[in-house]
Amino acid sequence: MSDLASRHCRNGADKLPAEQVRRYLEELADWELSQDERSIQSTFQFDNYYQTLSFVNAIAWMANREDHHPDLEVSYNRCVVHYSTHDAGGLTDNDFICAAKVIALLS
Amino acid sequence: MSDLASRHCRNGADKLPAEQVRRYLEELADWELSQDERSIQSTFQFDNYYQTLSFVNAIAWMANREDHHPDLEVSYNRCVVHYSTHDAGGLTDNDFICAAKVIALLS
Repeated sequence: MSDLASRHCRNGADKLPAEQVRRYLEELADWELSQDERSIQSTFQFDNYYQTLSFVNAIAWMANREDHHPDLEVSYNRCVVHYSTHDAGGLTDNDFICAAKVIALLS
Repeated sequence: MSDLASRHCRNGADKLPAEQVRRYLEELADWELSQDERSIQSTFQFDNYYQTLSFVNAIAWMANREDHHPDLEVSYNRCVVHYSTHDAGGLTDNDFICAAKVIALLS
């Protein structure tokens, strides 16, 4: 995990084999594979909208730094974060690097 | 529309009859009723993530002022905004007031 969170996204990252996806997921607490296995997601709970939006903005800052942008579902006290690499048609190192950075934001 | 956008949300607003929902929707360009008729939604397109997140934050500011918070789907250049009044089990004046304020943000 600590290794993943310290890495940076790279343009043109290759789609990962299922075995590597499984290995990465073991490192990332509370992230799960989508049903179509093309994205990963995790749900974060907060006390109120101010906290939820602060989290959204921290993610946005990191997303712009890494030039890799998640899909977000934002409600009053909850944010669901989805990562996928559309160009690769599935999951790449970049998705797991950013998922680890999201965990690091909260640690 | 101008009238709706200048009004403010009120606690304990009543669920609206279908006829009033239809009248309000005629005033709100590009907002549509969800299939279960308990929420309204509209999709907004932007050029990039910076613009999308600025829009999200403008909505959040207004949501906190009105104490009425939408659900958002946020991706790179798109934000889908959903309004519903959970306490009322459907749509109230508050949802249409805020939808009109979202339109006003963009005008």
